[in-house]
Order: sequence, then C-alpha cells, then structure tokens
Amino acid sequence: MAGGETPESQLRGSSDGVTNVDAVELKPDGSAVVIIDQTLLPNRLEYVELSDAQDMYDAILRLKVRGAPAIGVCAGYCYYVLARQEADRETSYDAFAAAMGRQRDYLNSSRPTAVNLSWALGRMHGVTLAHSGEDPHAVVEALRDEAVAIHREDLAMSEEISRLGASLLSDGDGVLTHCNAGPLACLGYGTGQGPLFYAHDHGKEVHVFADETRPLLQGARLTSYELQRAGIDVTLICDNMASIVMRNGWVQACMVGCDRVAMNGDVANKIGTSGVAILAHHYGIPFYVLGPTSTIDRSCPTGDDIKIEERDPDEIKTMWYAEPKALPEVRCYNPAFDVTDHDLITAIVTERGICRPPYDQSLAALFE
Amino acid sequence: MAGGETPESQLRGSSDGVTNVDAVELKPDGSAVVIIDQTLLPNRLEYVELSDAQDMYDAILRLKVRGAPAIGVCAGYCYYVLARQEADRETSYDAFAAAMGRQRDYLNSSRPTAVNLSWALGRMHGVTLAHSGEDPHAVVEALRDEAVAIHREDLAMSEEISRLGASLLSDGDGVLTHCNAGPLACLGYGTGQGPLFYAHDHGKEVHVFADETRPLLQGARLTSYELQRAGIDVTLICDNMASIVMRNGWVQACMVGCDRVAMNGDVANKIGTSGVAILAHHYGIPFYVLGPTSTIDRSCPTGDDIKIEERDPDEIKTMWYAEPKALPEVRCYNPAFDVTDHDLITAIVTERGICRPPYDQSLAALFE
Repeated sequence: MAGGETPESQLRGSSDGVTNVDAVELKPDGSAVVIIDQTLLPNRLEYVELSDAQDMYDAILRLKVRGAPAIGVCAGYCYYVLARQEADRETSYDAFAAAMGRQRDYLNSSRPTAVNLSWALGRMHGVTLAHSGEDPHAVVEALRDEAVAIHREDLAMSEEISRLGASLLSDGDGVLTHCNAGPLACLGYGTGQGPLFYAHDHGKEVHVFADETRPLLQGARLTSYELQRAGIDVTLICDNMASIVMRNGWVQACMVGCDRVAMNGDVANKIGTSGVAILAHHYGIPFYVLGPTSTIDRSCPTGDDIKIEERDPDEIKTMWYAEPKALPEVRCYNPAFDVTDHDLITAIVTERGICRPPYDQSLAALFE
Repeated sequence: MAGGETPESQLRGSSDGVTNVDAVELKPDGSAVVIIDQTLLPNRLEYVELSDAQDMYDAILRLKVRGAPAIGVCAGYCYYVLARQEADRETSYDAFAAAMGRQRDYLNSSRPTAVNLSWALGRMHGVTLAHSGEDPHAVVEALRDEAVAIHREDLAMSEEISRLGASLLSDGDGVLTHCNAGPLACLGYGTGQGPLFYAHDHGKEVHVFADETRPLLQGARLTSYELQRAGIDVTLICDNMASIVMRNGWVQACMVGCDRVAMNGDVANKIGTSGVAILAHHYGIPFYVLGPTSTIDRSCPTGDDIKIEERDPDEIKTMWYAEPKALPEVRCYNPAFDVTDHDLITAIVTERGICRPPYDQSLAALFE
C-alpha cells in the first residue's frame, strides 16, 4: 500500500501487491471506514477516516469515494461502523433496528441514483432485520461478517473478470483504455482496467494508452495514477489522440468498463466510449467491454432504451480551469455517457464468462 | 466589429458584417498594426497596437496573432509600418533597404517554421528590392500597396473557399467542426469554418457543433467565441462527444481546415481530425476539408511523408489548470497534428474549386 500512515489492510485477499492503493478499508478495530479521498488525486494521496454518519454522507456525495463497486463496499462498512455505535447506545433490539433504519435512509440519500449504494445498504439492513429480537451487539457481529462478505464478493468478481480479460491479452500488447474502472473504482484489480493489473501481476506486460476522459478527467487523474503507481507502462493521451495512436500500430486491444449493458449487447459507458469503439473497428483492433453481470440490465432490450444523463455545461467551460474557456452564453451539450452498438464489441467479459456475439444469446445464457 | 474602442477597418472587403471581429488591421494613419490579442480570448477582447519591431516579434511568438493566413497579413503590415519609420530615419535607398533586410530577418525569426510569415516578409522585401535607388518614401507607398494586396488576396481566397464550401450545405444542416480556421485565423470568413459564416451571411442557417479541441482548446476559446459573436447557432462539446452527437442524427456534414495536403489527398490537420473523419465515415456523414491551394504540398506524395510534430506533455497535464491533472512522472504522447486518409474525405475545397476523389487526379488538375 502507498503512503506510510495508512492502516493495515485486513482484506487484501486477491488484490495483494497488485494495486498499490486500496480505495476502501475497514479500520482494524472496526471503529471507522478508511477511504482514499479520490478528489485530491493525483496531487495528494490522503486517507480519510469515516466514523460518523455525516462524514460518510459527505464522502459519498462529494465523490471522495466513487465507482459503483467501491461505493457498495464503502456503504457496507459504513453501516457496520454506525451499527457498533448504535449498539452501545441502544440496549433493546427494536430501538437498535429503528436507529439503523434511519441511518440506512440517511446514507442512501447521499447519491440516490447509485444502485450499488442502495443495494449494499439494503443487504446490510436485511441482516439486521433477520436477527430480530437478538442482542444488538450480537447483530453487530453478523453485520461485520456481511460487510466483509460484500467486500470479498466484490474482490472475487473483479479478480475473475480481470483473469478472464487478461486471457485476451498477449505479452507486449498495447492496450487503449478510457475513463476509470480500476482498483480505485472497483477494489481489487478493477473491471475495465482490471486485466491490465492482473496481467502485470502475472508476468504479462502491457503498454497502456489512457484517454484523459474529458470533461471529468478520470483517465488522467485516476487511471494514469493507478497504473503509474503499480509500475505498469502507461502513456496519457487526450481523447482525440486515440485515432493516431491506433494508426501508429501501437494498440492491439481496447478495454473499457460499462455502466449498463442491454440484452442485445449495446453498452452504455462513459462518454467517448462509442468513439473509441468505432476507431477500433476502423483499424481492426478488438474492443472489449468488462463488467459484472449486475450491470446487465435484463429489463433493457437495446441501447435505445437507455436514457443518457446530461450534466452541467460548466464541467466543459469552467471546471478545473484558472479562467473560463468559453463565453458564458455559449451553449454546451454534456452527456455523461454514450451507447456503443453491440456490433462494434468483440466480447463482453463478466465474472461468469466471456460473452461473444450474438449477444442476445450469449448474455441470456449467463442467467440460465 | 465588436468592441467600442477599435479602429475603423479600412479593408473590410467581402468580410463586411460577417465576422464581428477582425484579427488584423492596419491603423488608418498607417502608424501601427492593430491585432486582437487572441491569447486573452474568450474572456477579454483586447486590441493591441504594434508599432515597434519588438512588440511585433513578441505578438507573433506568443501567439497573440495566430493562424497561417492571419500571420501572413500581419507580417505584411508590420513590414510596412517599420518601413515608414526607417524611411523617416534613412535618406538613402541603400541604408533603407539594408535596414529593412535586418527587420525582415528579425521578424522572421519569431516563428521560424511559420511558412506564411517568411512568405509574406519575403514578398514585401521583394518590393523593396524591386525599387532599387528610389526615394525611401516612394518605396513605402509601394509597400503599402503590397501589404494591402496580401490582405485582399487572403480575403478573396477565404471568400471563395467559403462560398464553395457553403454550396455543400443545406439550410438547417448540423455541421460538426474541429479546431479553429475561422475569421481569427484566416481573416474574412476563414477556411475550415468559413462556410458557416458565409452561409449565415447569405440566409442559410446552420447548427454548429464545435469540438473543444484538446489540449489547446482552440475550439472552445476561439471557434465557439467567433460563432457566438456572429449570431450563429453553436454548441460546444468535448472532442469525445462527437460520436454521440452524430449518432443522435444532429450532424449532416463535417468541415475542417488543413495544415498540409499530400498529392494523394491525405490531409494533415489539428490532432483529432482523423478521428472525426472515421466517425463521419461510420455514420455516413460527408467529411469536407477546406484550405487554400498553398497548403497542397506538391513535394509530398502521401500522408506517410508528413512528419508529425510532438509538443510539450505539460500541455496535457498542467496547462490551463489550477492544479496538475496527472503525476509529474506520467508520460504523455502529444502530437500536434494527425493524418486523415484520403479515402475518408468526401471533398477538398480550395479557392480554385472543389476536388473530389480520385484526389491524385483532381488535386494535380488544380496546378495544370
């Protein structure tokens, strides 16, 4: 782990020695959740201890912890840390359970659209409800096991996706990637960038080209940071340089994460992903999407059914800058995601296996 | 013209009422060149008067005036303004011509690789040499005519390219553009964006999507500024949003300028251009390149013969930002240009006509 003052990890599991950073951990004495404040990267690696509900809420709201799997793991540990405190205050099960219901609702309201947040909090609260009438301190022990289980499952998912993804790479390959779905977002190896860390950890070296990923610059701030810290060969480029990098013959595969996968294999991911896929198709380079089966939306037939969130124009015009870069009255279009057509995707890698076209069959088979 | 304190234009010519800004003008009394300081845009529209050689050198070096045609026009006027001063100091032709030779060399060293700079200075100095033995004040009159001729020819070139380019657009079209080759870079209407201004000025409305154009942000700082000021419908996007904008059906044509055209039709232009061309090809959208015949390099058979300049990594990692966006040790690849293959280009528009494939024939025909 990077940084001298960080707590010992209890749960390195399969990520041991791989990532150099652990985005979320439980403090060994159970009194706090320890996270990397991702808003300060790449300039400062600072760990923050979260022990009261308001700090937890604030950390999720302000994206100090981000990436769907990391948010889920963080939420599980936050619930546990708060449960310890409530168990010391409340002697009756009913008062304890009621207090935890309020804490769950409060944390859940920090990012209402983050599916993994409500999923993890719901799973933790389900454990509380399943221990009806028991001594709160005993419930707390079960909650710790559940939070650890969420963490372990997440690590196992990301390990398997990374292993399968790395099997698609050869030693010496150039890999172009977009946005951030590495250890900071996912714990363990990650998903979209997971195979890069896995390959490095298992003796296969890759040369990574990281799109900076405008406007929020996750590729510059987080992906190039993670890869550099892990000792993986990484070259940062602007998004509009992907074409020349491919034309130069430097890229043998593209790997990205995903936010939602439709049942026909269309993929919603960070804005710019579809452009990378079209370039890869043009240059004859395989384009791989990696993510857990939980991102496959069985209620979503095609990419046309995915609504694309539009964000604040100031992310384009003023954010990060010392001075604005366009007139205040200039209109912007700032979609957070785009949809990549399934016929541009070489394979979709999940923890249950590698899906190939035709996706309407291979994705459905994952759920049989 | 925007801004209240600006001098009257002597040479609006065909650009009258079109552009709202004139990047380069001669002060009516001939005592100075007036330029817009493009480094301050879009936040401040400030005109700078250049009357001594060091200020002129500095303005070109520091990109206060930029864009090949604008630099050429500026250099012609700078030479004239300095000639007036030398004619007041030197009574003999020989002393005058020697002094102007030194001034030419000094100005030319401000940006040694800018072809239009040395071309315009050479043309002006040729006039001085052609008037051997005459009274310096008489030579100065001829020099004024030559500088005005350079300006007029540039306006005529850009007007014709813009007219021809606009003929390719229909009322209501969406047009995606990249970087800046509008009035600030080219005077008059411009080249790459010239047809947008021409169409607007002739009753044809277009909806422009301007790529911000990382890392130097010419699309945000200059193109969206020019279009907005001219009352043209413009939407600023990050470069990686071009794909979704095309997928949404909002783009009926792409238009870009060019830095060099090979004889087979391969085009070197601002980094990111080839990516736009590949997207346009994928979505079935015409992709037009616009530029003067002077950018067609008859000594260059194909794009593979064009050397691509690499620039400072800090343009990607630190420039514009309040804080760095990647670790100091992260490597960057920062090519200033890329090459677009001729088979992705629908037409190349020059002031001598619209060239269509096969370009090895249509481009050669321009010079017959």
